[in-house]
Amino acid sequence: MPEGTDVFEVIHTTRAMRRLKPDPVPDELIRNILLAGQAAASGGNTQRWRFLVLKDPEIKKKVQVYYKKAFDETNEYLTDHYHEAPVWIVACLEGASPTRSAGSSIYPAVQNMLLAARALGLGATLTTRHLTYEKETEAAMGIPPGFHSYAILPIGYPMGRFGPVARGPLADVVYLDGWGKPYPGI
Amino acid sequence: MPEGTDVFEVIHTTRAMRRLKPDPVPDELIRNILLAGQAAASGGNTQRWRFLVLKDPEIKKKVQVYYKKAFDETNEYLTDHYHEAPVWIVACLEGASPTRSAGSSIYPAVQNMLLAARALGLGATLTTRHLTYEKETEAAMGIPPGFHSYAILPIGYPMGRFGPVARGPLADVVYLDGWGKPYPGI
Repeated sequence: MPEGTDVFEVIHTTRAMRRLKPDPVPDELIRNILLAGQAAASGGNTQRWRFLVLKDPEIKKKVQVYYKKAFDETNEYLTDHYHEAPVWIVACLEGASPTRSAGSSIYPAVQNMLLAARALGLGATLTTRHLTYEKETEAAMGIPPGFHSYAILPIGYPMGRFGPVARGPLADVVYLDGWGKPYPGI
Repeated sequence: MPEGTDVFEVIHTTRAMRRLKPDPVPDELIRNILLAGQAAASGGNTQRWRFLVLKDPEIKKKVQVYYKKAFDETNEYLTDHYHEAPVWIVACLEGASPTRSAGSSIYPAVQNMLLAARALGLGATLTTRHLTYEKETEAAMGIPPGFHSYAILPIGYPMGRFGPVARGPLADVVYLDGWGKPYPGI
């Protein structure tokens, strides 16, 4: 386990890790990531989630074909090597039509898993691009009616190094007691 | 700062803290929570978020009226005392219609803030119920066209104690390489 697992250090060094080694990842680490996901809150504590872990190269390859179709140049490396990540966690939620707050019952779990992965020295990224080909990719992964995927997290040992995330001044995005009003001292 | 800030301990003890003291919270703690939010990933790293901090009792009371209208018995205490939390962080995102993955650019930030609050000894909860009266509550908070609120986090010193979150067996919600297929040893 690299460095510390202080939550602030972990939060501020959880970069999108897009270049992953194909080396296998111990199940015990994946288990700890999934436990972290399951610990998140969900609307009314309904826990209508399922976490589909994919290691099968064929299934991952089928989905990567669509991922590449919805190509985004900024993520070129990940696009070509998407399916080579040894483990994917597909975060799924029960329920049909997405409302604005639907994601509030699944993305907190996703974020817990990203932080847990980081704390365990594993690289991961939150990806949603497969949803451009939602029907095709959910069919390839065998997600049944009544459930939908909200994110695919490709997980593996990173090629690059973890490091601080870069963000602008907090004052640019924080207001106090009124839109556009500065928060003194922030 | 209570106990440790080990990320796994923090994740597994971040309960919804619904009973909050009205005592004020130091700005420095709120700042650390906001920094944690800002460190989260967002789609294409676009960071189209704004965090509206509300301390103004009048604005909070206006929103609480609608929160109470959309009453949910399981959260009775929070409903009556919603506006008494000394600080609210309203997580907002630029962009109009919600897609399934819209929340992927704001709820990771929300989860970082919940974990940061926990690590700082502050109680908080992810609430979305105000969206039942979306237009009325967003007007009361002065959120301009082009932005929408995705969550309100009431923050304060908790009356109750932090403790482990309760979850069922991981095997109930995790599959490997096919829907319904058990993950051996999970």
